[in-house]
Amino acid sequence: MSAVGTASRVDEVFEAIERAERPEVFVHLRPRAEVAADYERSIAGGGPLAGKILAVKDNVDVAGVPTTAACPGYAYTPDADAPAVAALRAAGAVVIGKTNLDQFATGLVGTRSPYGAVRDSRRPEYISGGSSSGSAVAVALGLVDLAIGTDTAGSGRVPAGLQGIVGVKPTVGAISTEGVVPACAEYDTVTIFGRTLAEADAAMAVMATAVGPATFGPSTRLAAPGRPVLAVPAELPELDEPWRAAFDTAVATAEAAGMSIRRVDLQPFLDAAKLLYEDALVAQRHDAVGAFIDGNPGDGLDPTVAGIIGAANRFSAVDLLSARRRLADLRAEAMTQWGEATALLVPTAPFHPTIEQVAADPVGVNSRMGTYTNFCNLFDLCGLAIPAGTIAESDGGHAQFGVTLLGKAHDDAVLIDLARRMGEDPVVAPGWPEAVAPTVELAVFGAHMRGGPLVHELSDRGARWSGEVVTAPAYRLVALDTVPPKPGLIRDPTRGRAIHGETWTLSPAALGDFLAALPEPMMLGKVELADGSWVTGFGCAADAGAAGTGVDRDRW
Amino acid sequence: MSAVGTASRVDEVFEAIERAERPEVFVHLRPRAEVAADYERSIAGGGPLAGKILAVKDNVDVAGVPTTAACPGYAYTPDADAPAVAALRAAGAVVIGKTNLDQFATGLVGTRSPYGAVRDSRRPEYISGGSSSGSAVAVALGLVDLAIGTDTAGSGRVPAGLQGIVGVKPTVGAISTEGVVPACAEYDTVTIFGRTLAEADAAMAVMATAVGPATFGPSTRLAAPGRPVLAVPAELPELDEPWRAAFDTAVATAEAAGMSIRRVDLQPFLDAAKLLYEDALVAQRHDAVGAFIDGNPGDGLDPTVAGIIGAANRFSAVDLLSARRRLADLRAEAMTQWGEATALLVPTAPFHPTIEQVAADPVGVNSRMGTYTNFCNLFDLCGLAIPAGTIAESDGGHAQFGVTLLGKAHDDAVLIDLARRMGEDPVVAPGWPEAVAPTVELAVFGAHMRGGPLVHELSDRGARWSGEVVTAPAYRLVALDTVPPKPGLIRDPTRGRAIHGETWTLSPAALGDFLAALPEPMMLGKVELADGSWVTGFGCAADAGAAGTGVDRDRW
Repeated sequence: MSAVGTASRVDEVFEAIERAERPEVFVHLRPRAEVAADYERSIAGGGPLAGKILAVKDNVDVAGVPTTAACPGYAYTPDADAPAVAALRAAGAVVIGKTNLDQFATGLVGTRSPYGAVRDSRRPEYISGGSSSGSAVAVALGLVDLAIGTDTAGSGRVPAGLQGIVGVKPTVGAISTEGVVPACAEYDTVTIFGRTLAEADAAMAVMATAVGPATFGPSTRLAAPGRPVLAVPAELPELDEPWRAAFDTAVATAEAAGMSIRRVDLQPFLDAAKLLYEDALVAQRHDAVGAFIDGNPGDGLDPTVAGIIGAANRFSAVDLLSARRRLADLRAEAMTQWGEATALLVPTAPFHPTIEQVAADPVGVNSRMGTYTNFCNLFDLCGLAIPAGTIAESDGGHAQFGVTLLGKAHDDAVLIDLARRMGEDPVVAPGWPEAVAPTVELAVFGAHMRGGPLVHELSDRGARWSGEVVTAPAYRLVALDTVPPKPGLIRDPTRGRAIHGETWTLSPAALGDFLAALPEPMMLGKVELADGSWVTGFGCAADAGAAGTGVDRDRW
Repeated sequence: MSAVGTASRVDEVFEAIERAERPEVFVHLRPRAEVAADYERSIAGGGPLAGKILAVKDNVDVAGVPTTAACPGYAYTPDADAPAVAALRAAGAVVIGKTNLDQFATGLVGTRSPYGAVRDSRRPEYISGGSSSGSAVAVALGLVDLAIGTDTAGSGRVPAGLQGIVGVKPTVGAISTEGVVPACAEYDTVTIFGRTLAEADAAMAVMATAVGPATFGPSTRLAAPGRPVLAVPAELPELDEPWRAAFDTAVATAEAAGMSIRRVDLQPFLDAAKLLYEDALVAQRHDAVGAFIDGNPGDGLDPTVAGIIGAANRFSAVDLLSARRRLADLRAEAMTQWGEATALLVPTAPFHPTIEQVAADPVGVNSRMGTYTNFCNLFDLCGLAIPAGTIAESDGGHAQFGVTLLGKAHDDAVLIDLARRMGEDPVVAPGWPEAVAPTVELAVFGAHMRGGPLVHELSDRGARWSGEVVTAPAYRLVALDTVPPKPGLIRDPTRGRAIHGETWTLSPAALGDFLAALPEPMMLGKVELADGSWVTGFGCAADAGAAGTGVDRDRW
């Protein structure tokens, strides 16, 4: 791209921001010349995120730009990018500025900021959702391609739901939270907003490398099973009446995509949320920024936020231990409800209030807003918020409806797979955990191919179908003397031909488990592909292969 | 065994207890008739622990027997056995009674009990070590075969060290702590004392089933690598001068057993211990039994224990969060020191004080006693305390010297393997985690056999050599056209013979990883054994096998 093209893209972005007339979205925009220089370097570098415009929530450090956490008096200017930001920039993302948020990431509404209440992208009298308010609206308005948020109790999901975009809330620990102003250090996560799952996923893959492979172990599931079981709340508390039909539609979509639905009691999940704000777990918020608030009364503080965090110091260590025990008990109850379900599907937000409604009852509305998000990080779940249509509201407008898929820790890739199936996307691209999880590829040539009768042996072990494959012209496929006859792949460089098969990507633990359960005469070893590379794949015992019946074809 | 034989064994035990003249060891002995009836049932049942006499620390529930935690006023009589006790009894262990302890498991000395200071098994003017004092002395005196202890900061290791027996301190969570009076709920573990590693290990295997398989995941290491790296403290603080030579001898033994020694800075480990007693982490002890102590001043309370737990309520929730952050930082520092070491070897206790010395400085001596144990559970380490000779003391007596192997969480089987190697035991029996960890057996026939050049590919992945094996008389072994020539096992029921190989037991993740790294033409599938069963094992690609050179022998 020419320098002129580069300049005009950056100019376009700045002009769009000006045209949008949403001064509350960005707390800080970087100087246009700096952004243009970064953009030019990005295009020249050609990284996986080359040319992507990135906004960063203003509780995450960008070198040389103040971090305010939406509290001017708290501001400091970091020397270094947070590792998550550094990873995105190294991959080509261009930081345009820092976005507004509910102060200290305490809120789910987007109104708790001295930089102004962030307005909904489509209906300005409504809230944006928060706390990652500016990031979500910047993406929804198309001002940026990607935005970083954070999520402790729903801050990376609620605004995604209300703004009709994708919000990825990873497993705690999967993305570095270094250089992030803590909310509840133990439960904080860095999140990504994107207009499509593919864009958000690409950014997550880049950020995940900032932590390294240790988070996703050798038994990471890379996809959902062939017949996923989706847990769905038996009751839908706090959900607006017209929103119920939208949720039913989402459940029907999941069913149509081959998922079976199991109703579960959400009560232990809901009870946990109370511990986060009404019991000693809230002390984490005081631990994070309480000393600042206590020492700077009134200094640009949002009164609601200051009230919550200021009061969070009233608990003793023994209170906290008692709350943690109660949380562990609730989690055990919740996991009993969960059972063997692949994931839990919930509405992302239960309704969409106006800014006025929030002003009238700032704590009550906020609390209701977190009904389906608060418990997630406390129970060590991962989440993926996706758009699920719109709802005609009584005032003639349309609200965005969103649902969230929740998974057990490290099942992030399972959620991506489920979301793709619900959106009827082809399930081929690896989910972002594969950027760091140990994986193995396995070539299959018979009953384990897509649509075959033994596919469940792979998909139940979290394997992901990853493509078609052709062997080097050095193999024969025979029908083995088994019931039913299985294909035996035999290496025979003199008489062989190219055989068509498929590959699956899976964890080392899944491969070992699959091998241990494999009956004779099937074997696994290396298979030579058409390009001369070797991949782990199927073969069979020599005697069984020799006794097999020749099949004169290049695929099973 | 006849009823007469049964009666006499139980009589023998009761008489030995009487002869020992250690009334302080047991808080409660069950009626002889009940024990005799249990014993008879145990012998008839023939379980893996049939006929083993078991003592239970009196902070662990035995149905129908009071649990005092060494505080008469606290006593309650549980309806049910703790799951750990129930598992041992179901396997044949016969509970003879409940043993004395440092009150509320708060102490490492064995003197903090209204039931009397527990005296050393060999030199009664010395302490037993604690808090599992009675359990350790009962085993050391031969009064019982096995004893249950608990360990939060060293209570299952220090008395093992001072009494010259084995103490197994499992990974937190590996054994159910249900029915155990909590000390610091988050860090408490149930432990086993035995006179030999084999006996203790058998009991651990039984108890582990009371939690189930979830604790040990699909990548559990089952043995140490061929060339283990043993981390050893660069400085040995608090260690008595004559004990240094004993520790040097233990290190030399490890070196002679093939381990390489790496000196590490123990400071971050030692700093963590201070958080447990001097900072807000001590609040856990108040959370556990503080309400009782506050409500019952003087009611059979040990003054030192009451002082520690009573004062533990002075911290706020924010103090606790701050201490936990400090702990996380220290753990990260400690793990940097640890690096790639297989395990850390430390003295179990740094000296052996008299009861009089403890009385003169109850907190100071106790604190020194925990130098090498306090940090373990805080850092989520597992531990194995083993005897390591005796030390001539200045008074003419001999002290028992013990060392502890510490491993990362879930490396319990690695420690057992290292201990066996240091004791020159044959490394054949599975360690107790194999009772619950998912495992796979792999038959090997060539370079992966013990002493072969590729053994490290298995042992570095945590595989355990598990025996010799002979195939059905249906295989041929050929020399493949590889450099160096590898053995190819080919199934050939008409011309084959029985081939001798070995099996290794490993985790599914290790097997998958091994397969993924396996070069062509080697393959893995099922191999038929002499007894007609099929095991996962080596084979080779058909063309390579056919081109191989015949070798006229039944082993490589």
